[in-house]
Amino acid sequence: MSHSAVEVIATKRDGGVLSDDAIAWMLDAYQRSEVAEEQMSALLMAILFNGLDDNELGTWTARMIASGERLDLSGLTRPTVDKHSTGGVGDKVSIILAPLVAACGAAVPQLSGRGLGHTGGTLDKLESIPGWRAALSNDEVLAQLEEVGAVVCAAGAGLAPIDRRLYALRDVTGTVESIPLISSSIMSKKIAEGTGALVLDVKVGRGAFMKDLAHARALASTMVGLGQRHGVATVAQLTAMDAPLGRAAGNALEVTESVDVLRGGGPSDVREVTLALARLMVGLVGLDVDPGAHLDDGSAYQVYRRMIAAQGGDPDAELPVAAHREMFVAPRAGTVTSVDALAVGVSAWRAGAGRARKEDSVSATAGVLTLVRVGDVVEAGTPLFELHADDDAHIEAGRAPLTGAVAIGEGPVAPAPLLLERVGG
Amino acid sequence: MSHSAVEVIATKRDGGVLSDDAIAWMLDAYQRSEVAEEQMSALLMAILFNGLDDNELGTWTARMIASGERLDLSGLTRPTVDKHSTGGVGDKVSIILAPLVAACGAAVPQLSGRGLGHTGGTLDKLESIPGWRAALSNDEVLAQLEEVGAVVCAAGAGLAPIDRRLYALRDVTGTVESIPLISSSIMSKKIAEGTGALVLDVKVGRGAFMKDLAHARALASTMVGLGQRHGVATVAQLTAMDAPLGRAAGNALEVTESVDVLRGGGPSDVREVTLALARLMVGLVGLDVDPGAHLDDGSAYQVYRRMIAAQGGDPDAELPVAAHREMFVAPRAGTVTSVDALAVGVSAWRAGAGRARKEDSVSATAGVLTLVRVGDVVEAGTPLFELHADDDAHIEAGRAPLTGAVAIGEGPVAPAPLLLERVGG
Repeated sequence: MSHSAVEVIATKRDGGVLSDDAIAWMLDAYQRSEVAEEQMSALLMAILFNGLDDNELGTWTARMIASGERLDLSGLTRPTVDKHSTGGVGDKVSIILAPLVAACGAAVPQLSGRGLGHTGGTLDKLESIPGWRAALSNDEVLAQLEEVGAVVCAAGAGLAPIDRRLYALRDVTGTVESIPLISSSIMSKKIAEGTGALVLDVKVGRGAFMKDLAHARALASTMVGLGQRHGVATVAQLTAMDAPLGRAAGNALEVTESVDVLRGGGPSDVREVTLALARLMVGLVGLDVDPGAHLDDGSAYQVYRRMIAAQGGDPDAELPVAAHREMFVAPRAGTVTSVDALAVGVSAWRAGAGRARKEDSVSATAGVLTLVRVGDVVEAGTPLFELHADDDAHIEAGRAPLTGAVAIGEGPVAPAPLLLERVGG
Repeated sequence: MSHSAVEVIATKRDGGVLSDDAIAWMLDAYQRSEVAEEQMSALLMAILFNGLDDNELGTWTARMIASGERLDLSGLTRPTVDKHSTGGVGDKVSIILAPLVAACGAAVPQLSGRGLGHTGGTLDKLESIPGWRAALSNDEVLAQLEEVGAVVCAAGAGLAPIDRRLYALRDVTGTVESIPLISSSIMSKKIAEGTGALVLDVKVGRGAFMKDLAHARALASTMVGLGQRHGVATVAQLTAMDAPLGRAAGNALEVTESVDVLRGGGPSDVREVTLALARLMVGLVGLDVDPGAHLDDGSAYQVYRRMIAAQGGDPDAELPVAAHREMFVAPRAGTVTSVDALAVGVSAWRAGAGRARKEDSVSATAGVLTLVRVGDVVEAGTPLFELHADDDAHIEAGRAPLTGAVAIGEGPVAPAPLLLERVGG
């Protein structure tokens, strides 16, 4: 059947339903550059307004997957399960979770993209470990999954390659904020990566992309439906992202904190979220084990060490530390009523921990340590944040967002729950 | 003030109002190719969904005008008034109206674009006259307005040049169907042309771009507001376009019919619409004359002859006629209840009278003569249409749309009124 781009755009613009054939034609023609960027951006904007129904989204995502290769993990002796987070400030959970779930008996193929904006990326964090490399071949991924059980590496260029073009286009055309487009972007890569099961950590709150529960729930439900439609057992956990997760936001700072958790310590909120997600992951693949035991007995930490070493990293290496630091203290006494995750994320980002453009490099050492939590009682002068950067200019850049990022009121204040709803479980 | 394209797009996408500064920046940056086609198309789609308010549209249109030159007709001794039609099948009114209103004492600067699609274009029609040329310099336009009082010619590349890029972009991105974008495209060129007054003929019905009264009224009202905002006295007449206007649809065929009307004959519906528009035009510039008298006394025809000759055309030349013709007859007796203007327009277009792409050439002779009108009583075998084309392949192409284009029912049927509402008068 023959199509024209204008017909496809007009159908969606007018609230119609795109046929499977029309979606396939449009994406394939775009991949061949027979549909122009300006035509695709018009369609993306029409989708932003009028949405995609379940069948349209399933077909759209299937064509994105078909734009490249799909890893075959079926030859592994362990069941495969992955986790994806929509991105939170201080969210270092992947670093702990991959080896932990591997220690429980599953294989965790965590193929990731680079971080953009204020939430950082797992690859950037692990690259603060001397020698560690993010780029692996497909054969190396398979071998490491078999031998170690966990891999955190860069998603290869062969997985859903059309997503890179679509994402770059959405980024410059104001069409990022669409639940079906976000869902297809995330899920096409996760499905192409070959995992048999998937747990989604959908962050909700001022430090997250989704600011309210209704939008987070809709995104979670759409992604869970997409995963199930493509044969990937998928559940979503909504978690709060109003305050930073843990104390550390920044690359080496977060690796250090992750190791603390892997060794049985670390901040309780990081441990709580990690264990909740680990339980969902092992449950999805039918393993009857308690992840908490594997955190406490050191087996997760041992897998972590092998995982880092397998990718050239030295798990015993000293991590770089920032040459410049600045302390921020409480201006008055009271109880901490909120810590603004977005402010902390933006501060760490501007201090050098994150990138504004894909081609930027990041600082291994820059970041923010958050020294108080909601409910803490402080005096005037109690340390609230420690800002880390490589030079004074970056300290300067990271300073402004931290001003007022901790609200101090009258106590007592109970911390809000971290674990919210579950979708599809 | 500094802007980013994504911010401008997101503001409109989210239902916000664009500042004058943001609109000016966006269009200027687009003209300098610093805003990409895919960004502009995303904005156009967002405008299609969320509209532009009066101030936004005024600013948008002002920047389109400012993208090029604006003719200065203030030195002419006569008042200037133009007419624009949104396009109808068999709509040859401009050919009659320009010399008629000139005969009434005004100067008519009818600077036109090429026809696209099923409604044809005035320039294509006049080019069927041997020797006639559409391209005039600004000095030639001014001289002819002073000496003859009427000019119908191609709008120069200098008038609102950004409209050509925006229109080409809208054409391939499904963003044509937006009242503010249609209005700014039409009005930017008419305002830049320098006319002091403007009558809009907004066609309504199945042969028109606007299929219903509500949309036509909204378009008319938007354009009238834009004209008034820019100091051009503007009124709109809504006219019916369910059946073709007159008998002839096609280039030379329409010129012949126009001359019939200019000589006091021709189809009564063409005469009726032309005179109604002429009365509005002379009224707008305060001339107390009766256009009907100038049609009947031959003075309009004399201006027509001078107007054609001034542009190199021979008003006495025989016009080319089609080598191939086919007659379509009534399948049964009854009363004509409707004649489908869209079907007639598409038939003439496919037979060669119109172009699908800007770079196509058109046939001077191809077209359709409609031989019956609503209310006529026909027998089986009564001629309904005569299809004209240059070869059998084009006869074949024009045939299908005419099948069933005349509905025959039980009489009597009264013809529907041609002149509908007036906006702004």
